[in-house]
Amino acid sequence: MAACANTILLDFKVESSSLTQDGFNKLEMEVIEGLEKHFGVNSMEKLMVKTLSSEGDHLSVFMGPQQSVINLRTFSNGLVSIIIDYLKEGDEEPLLTTLDGKALELALGKLGKDMKSVTLPPIKRGTPFDIYFPLSDGRLVEYDVDKLIYDEKSPFQRVQIMHSKTFGNMLVLDGLPNLAESDLVYTESIMCRGTEDYKDKEILILGGGDGALLNELRKENPKQIDEMVMKICKEHLRSACGDTLDSYIGKNYQIIVGDCIKYMEKCVFQGKKFDYVISDLTDLPISETPQGKMWELIRKVIRMSFSVLNDTGKFLQHGTGISCTNQLAMFEGVVGELEIPLSFTRTHAFVPSFLEDWVFYQIQRKAA
Amino acid sequence: MAACANTILLDFKVESSSLTQDGFNKLEMEVIEGLEKHFGVNSMEKLMVKTLSSEGDHLSVFMGPQQSVINLRTFSNGLVSIIIDYLKEGDEEPLLTTLDGKALELALGKLGKDMKSVTLPPIKRGTPFDIYFPLSDGRLVEYDVDKLIYDEKSPFQRVQIMHSKTFGNMLVLDGLPNLAESDLVYTESIMCRGTEDYKDKEILILGGGDGALLNELRKENPKQIDEMVMKICKEHLRSACGDTLDSYIGKNYQIIVGDCIKYMEKCVFQGKKFDYVISDLTDLPISETPQGKMWELIRKVIRMSFSVLNDTGKFLQHGTGISCTNQLAMFEGVVGELEIPLSFTRTHAFVPSFLEDWVFYQIQRKAA
Repeated sequence: MAACANTILLDFKVESSSLTQDGFNKLEMEVIEGLEKHFGVNSMEKLMVKTLSSEGDHLSVFMGPQQSVINLRTFSNGLVSIIIDYLKEGDEEPLLTTLDGKALELALGKLGKDMKSVTLPPIKRGTPFDIYFPLSDGRLVEYDVDKLIYDEKSPFQRVQIMHSKTFGNMLVLDGLPNLAESDLVYTESIMCRGTEDYKDKEILILGGGDGALLNELRKENPKQIDEMVMKICKEHLRSACGDTLDSYIGKNYQIIVGDCIKYMEKCVFQGKKFDYVISDLTDLPISETPQGKMWELIRKVIRMSFSVLNDTGKFLQHGTGISCTNQLAMFEGVVGELEIPLSFTRTHAFVPSFLEDWVFYQIQRKAA
Repeated sequence: MAACANTILLDFKVESSSLTQDGFNKLEMEVIEGLEKHFGVNSMEKLMVKTLSSEGDHLSVFMGPQQSVINLRTFSNGLVSIIIDYLKEGDEEPLLTTLDGKALELALGKLGKDMKSVTLPPIKRGTPFDIYFPLSDGRLVEYDVDKLIYDEKSPFQRVQIMHSKTFGNMLVLDGLPNLAESDLVYTESIMCRGTEDYKDKEILILGGGDGALLNELRKENPKQIDEMVMKICKEHLRSACGDTLDSYIGKNYQIIVGDCIKYMEKCVFQGKKFDYVISDLTDLPISETPQGKMWELIRKVIRMSFSVLNDTGKFLQHGTGISCTNQLAMFEGVVGELEIPLSFTRTHAFVPSFLEDWVFYQIQRKAA
């Protein structure tokens, strides 16, 4: 790995009442002593010290070895935070290993009232490709990405294929993991494999540009599948999509690159009906209310889908991570409030590369 | 959530040749302007500025709104890093939302040569309980822990039960996730369910204090199981261990709290033999070479296990995350170099709460 900035975060708690000016001076001395035990005597140069508020907010900034910048910060609630930031060359020993961090925690923790201290693995920044991705609820995860295989901007989005040691090749759209070779369970969950019978059925897939869904559906002998794709993964996600994307017209499927709303309008006009519409479009938007452009699109897709589904037809779509309870409730509200009376069931499955339990919906017309 | 420190990390790249003193002054002005667009005019007070080296290493420190401390740092390779650190009250609006971060990225990214910029979700520190855990290869993951249910120090280790929205109750030993209610696949993988036939067999489990392994083995009608446990999870991991830990002696099992090496020595003395020994003890140690106390223990456990296994008996044990290729190779070397000729197979399975593909070993005496 090339040079990247490493940010090491350590923290522990002291009695907030101890953070007077004198108390902070004493703490600062002990922290310097603790750090210099690891970095070497006189390895730290004090750059500044400042009292930020009279309620225990203090800041000292130091320069340490390898041009590291070290912030020692105390907060009014007794939290003591040390941030060490430096440029680590790829083959260089880390300034502080996890074990050093543990030792330092023990040394510094003695200052704290309950010895509770935390050293996080270094946060790496300026890496040649992204290794941190947020989960659906905004949590941070460091992936074991070791290679960037493809990186281009399409007219619609940034398309990347990254290799993860754990998940194989991953499709990343606009910085969000979309599907990896490890994720057959995603495809099987959205299509309800084992529950739904696709034999001789008419199926319309919206989205699903990675080809995985079409690839699995083809194994179930459906009558006909139409699919609209934005971007093909036939080269780099081959274990997921098989040979499905090699040809846009197959024995029992057709891939249409275009706007899925317009295609469905054409189907309405021609009176074409489907048994299943499977929507593999974008995730549920994160928002305070189910309003805005993205939610309008979701409503439109559901309405249009039911206008091309036959009376007992099913609309299948993925939701989002199970911990996003607000988003899921909003989506269920949207489904319940449409002018077509609809009922839904939901399932969930842990999708490896998402690192989350993911929710899937099965939506039908209410029986008259 | 109570007040905790939030650390927001932003970074982007500029031409390293532009980081002269003048170049840095210009960059600093644009960063202040960009940040004050979000924080308000004159919301930032400069505390210090320093050139750390003549190769483009500069540092400015500011105080921003809500007593935030803002480090603007440039590195010799052209990386520009902004660290914003402040105390966020539980119900307070974040100083910078993900969307603000994205907007700021765009504004600041214009300074950079290729617009590549990254804002990470805030790192939360001083939280009432840990929410970050390292994976086996040291990667950082933020878990969706929302409750600390149990937290005590035993004579041997710190024992915590935490509730995760995704994984249910999790057993955390000395800060490392051990088993969660979501992890039946771990138990089924270590015992090779479906491949091994436990009917009327003699089984010895080493470790396995969570009771999950014993609980699943009991369903396979073995003749007898002995188990040594350090700590019971019968209350909080009940969906994993069932009623297995309610009684230490059952129809076909016995739980022994004690040192498993000593117990095996006793078995050797008494001539007692087993068909399976399943070792659910600690993870493979992270080390440069397969030496040291922990590796000696691993050797000892394997040796002792084969001294109580009958000739065709199997030793089953978990390894570590699949991305820890060094640790796995060391373990396989250790197995291959013991004085007893052994052969092994390995399987792997993605364990939900570990967020990793985990390796499991099946070890046997080589056929004579």
